[in-house]
Parts: sequence; C-alpha cells; structure tokens
Amino acid sequence: MPVTEVPRGLAGVVVTDTALGDVRGTEGFYHYRQYSAVELAQSRTFEDVWHLMSRGFLPDAAQRAAFAAETAALRHLPAEVRDALPGIARACAVSGPLAGLRTALSLLGASAGLRPLYDVDAARRTADALATCAAVPTLLTALHRLGQGLEPVAPRDDLPYAANYLYMLTGAEPDARRARAIERYLVSTIDHGFNASTFTSRVIASTGADLAACLCGAIGALSGPLHGGAPSRALDTLDAIGTPDRIGPWVRERVLAGDRIMGFGHPVYRTEDPRSRMLREIAQEFGGPLVEFAVEVERQVEAILAELKPGRELHTNVEFYAGVVMELCGLPREMFTPTFCSARVVGWSANILEQAEDTKIIRPAARYVGPPPPQAVPAVLD
Amino acid sequence: MPVTEVPRGLAGVVVTDTALGDVRGTEGFYHYRQYSAVELAQSRTFEDVWHLMSRGFLPDAAQRAAFAAETAALRHLPAEVRDALPGIARACAVSGPLAGLRTALSLLGASAGLRPLYDVDAARRTADALATCAAVPTLLTALHRLGQGLEPVAPRDDLPYAANYLYMLTGAEPDARRARAIERYLVSTIDHGFNASTFTSRVIASTGADLAACLCGAIGALSGPLHGGAPSRALDTLDAIGTPDRIGPWVRERVLAGDRIMGFGHPVYRTEDPRSRMLREIAQEFGGPLVEFAVEVERQVEAILAELKPGRELHTNVEFYAGVVMELCGLPREMFTPTFCSARVVGWSANILEQAEDTKIIRPAARYVGPPPPQAVPAVLD
Repeated sequence: MPVTEVPRGLAGVVVTDTALGDVRGTEGFYHYRQYSAVELAQSRTFEDVWHLMSRGFLPDAAQRAAFAAETAALRHLPAEVRDALPGIARACAVSGPLAGLRTALSLLGASAGLRPLYDVDAARRTADALATCAAVPTLLTALHRLGQGLEPVAPRDDLPYAANYLYMLTGAEPDARRARAIERYLVSTIDHGFNASTFTSRVIASTGADLAACLCGAIGALSGPLHGGAPSRALDTLDAIGTPDRIGPWVRERVLAGDRIMGFGHPVYRTEDPRSRMLREIAQEFGGPLVEFAVEVERQVEAILAELKPGRELHTNVEFYAGVVMELCGLPREMFTPTFCSARVVGWSANILEQAEDTKIIRPAARYVGPPPPQAVPAVLD
Repeated sequence: MPVTEVPRGLAGVVVTDTALGDVRGTEGFYHYRQYSAVELAQSRTFEDVWHLMSRGFLPDAAQRAAFAAETAALRHLPAEVRDALPGIARACAVSGPLAGLRTALSLLGASAGLRPLYDVDAARRTADALATCAAVPTLLTALHRLGQGLEPVAPRDDLPYAANYLYMLTGAEPDARRARAIERYLVSTIDHGFNASTFTSRVIASTGADLAACLCGAIGALSGPLHGGAPSRALDTLDAIGTPDRIGPWVRERVLAGDRIMGFGHPVYRTEDPRSRMLREIAQEFGGPLVEFAVEVERQVEAILAELKPGRELHTNVEFYAGVVMELCGLPREMFTPTFCSARVVGWSANILEQAEDTKIIRPAARYVGPPPPQAVPAVLD
C-alpha cells in the first residue's frame, strides 16, 4: 500500500465529508448545518437544535412539541441500569463522573440491546440515538447525587431539557434565567468541528460497532485533559489569583515561567472564540463580583499576553466563561465537563449516524522504527 | 490551517512512529518488536510475549517466573466489580460479550482509580496496564458463565495464562495440547499493525485520557463487524456447506452473487495470512473430520476464487482456522471474538503506553459539504 506522509497529529488531514457543521478558525465562526451555532443558541431551544442535528432541519411548532414530548419520555432509565448506578457511583469516586458515565452508558446501550450500526436501518439508528442522548442527563445527575450520598431525582417530563437537567441535579426547579443560561450554553456545545472525541466516535462507527461502543469511546476521549479540558480549571485560576490587584503579577509570573494560563488559547481559533463572547454576555446579564473579576482578568491577561507573546492572538476560550456561567447557575465544579458532555453527546450521535452512511473503515498506518526484524527468538536458558 | 487531502479511510496515512511491530502485507510477515510473531507463538509462552510487549524485551528464566507470578496475582477482581457482573451479564444478553467486557472493564478501571495517562509516570502506567490485562480473562469468562446460568470460576494462580483462561471458562483444567494450542493462538493475536481498534486506543490516549477510557474505545471498535469480524462466521460457513460434495456449488453460487466468503481475504495481506498457516498446522495436529473438511474447503475455495477472480490473491485469513482451532479446544462460538480480544488487549495497552510518550493530540479535519452558512435562523411560527 502506498504510504502518505502527513502533519503530526493528523493536523489538517481531511478524513471525511460532513454536512453537520464546521469551525472557521480565522473568522471566529462555527455552524451547525447551515446555521450559526451562536445564533441558534440565542434564538432556539436545546430540543430544536437537537432536532436539527438529528433530523436535518429545524422543527416548526408542531414538530417542536412532538419532539419535546418524544425525548422527555425517553429520560427514564430501565430498572436494571438504575439499580447498577449506586455501585458505579461508588467505583468512580476517584476516576470521576465521566468514567461513571462511560460505564453507565455502556450498560444502558447493552441493556437496550443495541445492534451493530450496519445491522439496523437509519430510522432505528436515529431512534436509538435519541433514546441514548435523552438518558445521559439522567445518568449523569443520578451518579453525581449518589456520589454525594443523595437520592437520585427522577426526571420530569413536563420540563424542557435544560431545566430538567438542573432540576435532576439539585432537586429544585430552576428559575427561568438560570435554565435559559444553561440552555444557551448547552446548545453552543453540541458540536464543534472534527475534534478528537468526534473523530473517535467516527473511527469506531466506521467499524460498524453499535452506538454505545462509539459513544463510550467518545466519552473516553473527552475525558482526556488535552481535549475535554475542564471549565473548572479556568475558575480555579480565578480563585488562585484571588483579587484584582494580584492579576498582573500572577499572570506575568506564569507566562514568564512558560506556563499556560487555563481558559486562554484554542487550537483552531485565531480570533476571539465565539462561544466565549456569547458566554461573557450571558455572565454579564447576571452581573456581580465574580463576573466583574472575570472580565478584568480577561482584559489584563489578553493585554499581558499581547505584550509578552506578540502575534500569538491568545484569547479566552470556551472554558473561561463557561466556568463562570455554570458557577452562576449553581452547578458544582465536578459537573462542568459532564454538563458539556451531556450536550456534546447529541453532536457525537449525529456524527456517528452520518458515518454509518459510509462503509469504509478508517484504518491508517504507522511507521515501524524499531530494530529490524526478524531476529531469531532466543531460547529461555535456565 | 492548511488542508491535506488523503486516501479514503486514511488508507496508508502514517499517523505515528512505533517500535511495537508491523505487518508486511506483500511478504505475508508480521512482527512484534524485532521478532517474527509466528516464531514467538511457536516458541514462547503468552506471558513471555506479554513481557516483550510491555517491558520491551523477552524475559530470561528468572524474569519469566517473576512476571508469571506477578500477573497471576492480578487475575482476581475487586469485590465491587465482581458484585456488578451478574447485572452486567443480564444486560448484555443481546448486545453480547464485548459489550459486557466494555462495561465491566470501564467499571474495573474506575474502581482502580485510574488517572489520566499524563498525570502518572511510566512505571505506574505499566503497572496499571498489567493489572487491567490480567483481569480481562477473569471478566470475560465470568460474564460468559453468568450468561449461561453458571457460577463464575475463580482464577487459579498456579496455571499459566492460557490454561487458566480455559479453566475459568469450563471449570476443568484443560489438557496440555488444548492449552498450548490456545496459547499459540493468543500469542499470534496480541498485535497486528495499525488496525482500527489499535488506532482508536491511540487517538483516545493522545488526549491524555486514562487507560480504561482507551481500552473501552478499542473494545468498541473491535466489536464492529468490519473489524473484529467473527471467527465463528467462518465456522458458520463450514456448517452451511455441510458436506465435501456441496463445496463447489455452494461457493460458486456465493461468488457469482457477489457475496464475500467469510474467512477469506484480508485488507493488508496479498499472500497467505501467516496466522492462518500456523493455525492450520495446529488444527492438523488435532486432525479429525472437521479439520479435513476445513482443509478441503480452503483448497476448493482458493481454486474457485483464483478462477473467478483472477489476480485477486484471496486466501484464508486468521478467522478461518482460528475458528477451527477454538472449536477443537472446546470454546463456545460466542467466545471466539472475546478470546481474540483477551490477547489483543495486551497489544492495545502497549500502543497506549507508547502513545503516552507523545503529547500531540490526534485531531484531523473534515470537509463541510452542506448548504453554505450562515443562513438566518427562522423563527418558530405557531
């Protein structure tokens, strides 16, 4: 087979065509299908955009109502999965909530009797994906509460997706402002180009494995510090700085030591991250000392980075204000990345279903660089 | 970012350097580090080759004894994982044993408190990989027995890897010939180039995720019909043909209908698959009507394929005689692919640990081909 040399990490290597969306790093723009993702987040519900990703178009009023009812009914877990959650929550005390979700979703998929992607038709694949995505918030919030020594809160079918998420997490119905803030965040997080977890989900899908196999791989990739990162880390940075007068010295010390400042810089965007801009606006609707401090940190870090690393165009990324917004909405920090994941699973599923229309396995190559074979296998001498 | 166009499915695209091994498709040769994999299978124990993949060199007598003792002690499951297996086995009745392993291994990794690859040192990563690989046969055989309504059989520390595998599966100590036949098969299956599951494990590892996250993704990819396939399918083909006089008509009908004959053809080998040759020899040591029939089917299928598809070089692949050997060793058919997986997990782990020495995330690109954005988001009309 002819060998093709490409940049490290497959950077810029086109693996596939997609009609699901793209990121334009130099323009600071990303889209889901033909729509600006930020405009969707500002003007549509989570269910609407889920419908767009899953069915290919935005719903009208009747379709919206039907889709909301259909997905709400899918939030409930089968008994055999529910019964396993306390054990999973105990086991994941150290490895964390994404390890818990990976395990629980694997069990849920098996319990649903998922079959290989190529063994079922597209309608069945779509139905399986809806059922799986709808259950993710229930799994995540139940595992979190069990880990805190609390009883899980059953989903409520009468609440929209985002409000129900906060309700299952806290046991209290959220106010409209918080529910809508989280909803906009979740919409903005559904998809974002061909990142490592999306790619993982498509590599697994290309073997024809079942939906849960693909999603478990994607959750695993998202759990990697170089990918899913942690919106909570950016908040930890705010905590570490502490007060406005310490911003300058703290940041200069870090930058001069060669450390990354968490919440700044993105592998694709060379401009402001459009998600960051939207989340800052949401945060500023809340206002208060944390938001004012975050805005001041952003202003000073960008100025110092522009001075010390001229030409690098380092701006806040999605982590920075996502952490602030989630904190304002009362989410515990260990649930920041899982909350991100609860939306991204909709994007992964759309990618998996798109990949299932292809039948070419993704199987690249490696270059052997060890000692030349074959060398004789030595006998074991006593 | 500049865009690089490559062959579909990343065929021939070099993702990384590796010192673990390679497949030379035109030579019918594959190797683990600097040794012929088939020669290793013929002359070394499973533990020896595991040591080679994990530590980088073949053990001497003292190292062999120490490694065997070390890994045997790691076969036992923590109570919280053992207690979860009946529920997992019930849930996986339809989706199958790899879905069960994916779930159980995810739980085991979490229960072990695995941390992101980049947060622990190489010695700890190696120890975690040994512990995980050593537990896989225990998980697989326990899940299988539970699915059959039987009690799991606890591992025995005094048996070598392969013999213990058969012992845990059946509850009886295997005879030496069967244990050695399966051991050679398992050694030959540890690694095989940069296939889709190995690649999956390395993509996830490149995010810095923990070992279980990487392995669960790899198991998912292996469960895909286009990758892990099923050695049992080749045996099903033998059953479908039934008797020697029906070989010719059955095969001609399939080939003329454009169907693939399961157990023949490989994406990389253009010659006989070296694993197939070794497994045929093992089968012929057993002898008997099944083996004679398989050899006759191979002979006639290759002749018919050479006649009807000249120049295609279609030979038996690893599935064909692997199925025969596992049948002769008393393995139930639904355990054929899981048995393959129990060895491959050693290869994946070596790949994950090698990837962990790199710190560049694997993040390719896709080409957006949908309607051009941004189009205005329509309002929802009642």
